[in-house]
Amino acid sequence: MIATVVGTGLIGGSLALSLKKLGIAEQIIGVESNSENADIAVELGLVEETTTLEKAMERSTLIVLAIPVNAIPMVAVKALNRVTDRQVVIDMGSTKGELCEVISQHPRRSRFVATHPMWGTEYSGPRAAVDDGFSGRTVVICEKERSAPDALQMVEDMYRALEMPIKYMEAEEHDVHAAYVSHISHITSFALALTVLEKELEEDHILDLAGGGFESTVRLAKSSPAMWTPIFMQNKYNVLDVLREHIHQLQVLRRMIEKDDVAGLTKAMQKANEIRRIIH
Amino acid sequence: MIATVVGTGLIGGSLALSLKKLGIAEQIIGVESNSENADIAVELGLVEETTTLEKAMERSTLIVLAIPVNAIPMVAVKALNRVTDRQVVIDMGSTKGELCEVISQHPRRSRFVATHPMWGTEYSGPRAAVDDGFSGRTVVICEKERSAPDALQMVEDMYRALEMPIKYMEAEEHDVHAAYVSHISHITSFALALTVLEKELEEDHILDLAGGGFESTVRLAKSSPAMWTPIFMQNKYNVLDVLREHIHQLQVLRRMIEKDDVAGLTKAMQKANEIRRIIH
Repeated sequence: MIATVVGTGLIGGSLALSLKKLGIAEQIIGVESNSENADIAVELGLVEETTTLEKAMERSTLIVLAIPVNAIPMVAVKALNRVTDRQVVIDMGSTKGELCEVISQHPRRSRFVATHPMWGTEYSGPRAAVDDGFSGRTVVICEKERSAPDALQMVEDMYRALEMPIKYMEAEEHDVHAAYVSHISHITSFALALTVLEKELEEDHILDLAGGGFESTVRLAKSSPAMWTPIFMQNKYNVLDVLREHIHQLQVLRRMIEKDDVAGLTKAMQKANEIRRIIH
Repeated sequence: MIATVVGTGLIGGSLALSLKKLGIAEQIIGVESNSENADIAVELGLVEETTTLEKAMERSTLIVLAIPVNAIPMVAVKALNRVTDRQVVIDMGSTKGELCEVISQHPRRSRFVATHPMWGTEYSGPRAAVDDGFSGRTVVICEKERSAPDALQMVEDMYRALEMPIKYMEAEEHDVHAAYVSHISHITSFALALTVLEKELEEDHILDLAGGGFESTVRLAKSSPAMWTPIFMQNKYNVLDVLREHIHQLQVLRRMIEKDDVAGLTKAMQKANEIRRIIH
């Protein structure tokens, strides 16, 4: 089949490479608003050509939206406005509530499948694309009963070929869990980078001493603001809620250190260690 | 030479393996207060035998303290009480202020070299030991002018053989930088694990959705409370200081999300991105 990838950055570019590697798509058309990135995507072979959404849709079976989450709902509506019964539109965004609400009354809603592959790196743009990122990661499909059976089937087949276990959730439910497990990690990492850049004025020391666990904790702070600002804004209430809890936990730990509460601190860390049960 | 490693866990065990692999020590004697771990250390070949500090010192050229930082100062004093001019005692702890103060007036202070290799993992105990962890990581040597030239030389030679770049700092200076770059990362990670364990009651979802950056950010929350509680307590004022700043940064980000301050949020993340310059 021919697939169109709207947004030829980290996620869209990686999907394009994977679809071609696995022989799922013979040809990938790119739609990319940044002309420099469009050229790079063609140069790197992520896509064969780039064009407009309208022209790309004339020739594509699958249309994939891999753009920042604030741009997805409107492009989703535009794609649904011209989708046929033989075409499927999907998104790969990190929030689902607003998107699913915006398209909920669209007469062609059933041609859309809302998906969130739980993979990414701290890098962005076409040069960040890799052909084996998704394998083994979970993909969440939201509101599956709102998608036509054949559309859902095509998307499930694609993700299974990518070796991704599929979980089904409602859109609101997805956004709550994404806030807890993914979005909060990025905020802590951004805040940690800001803290260290603020406090550690001798930058050489950051580099020299970073062996002590700093690198893995701060890695996500390299992530793209263009991608993450819209995610935090679209998932605002869930993010605010989990962030309140996180600040509270830090304040409790800080108070225990201040009061020399060794027993309390040990107990809290032992509780935190329970994450071992879940993340091996 | 014969070396004694006091504490045959992650750090001491890894050093023992490295010293043998590189042919720096022909024999390693272990001193280990936990008899179960002592047996495992012998079984795994980290050390040839275990015995008391007193007996081990009778036969060793190098005595390495690789125990929790609250235990280091007293054992350092005991080792210095019986050290000869042909022996060297070092520690590998993550804080230096209290240790250097405690031993500062000891008549044999010059036989001690205070070191902090900037490496570790979230695992602990003898089974966590690996033979190639230290290579390429920085080691900090504190108060080098307080160590005898031959003692310093022996330790520098050892760390160079381990391929570790050496940085020199005062003890108080080390503790400030260690708080900023290493200790705060561990606290954020512990707090993140507590946050998610508190908020995410459906544990299956943590595991399924953890691809979104959560794993690397929460990894350090698996770290040993027995090792980290004493570090936070010994470096209390620096840790409280950097933790105050970190909570402040999180509150600022939270306020921006609450107020829909997209421009402010973007700017803050762009600033956080500057960590790319330092940590590649």
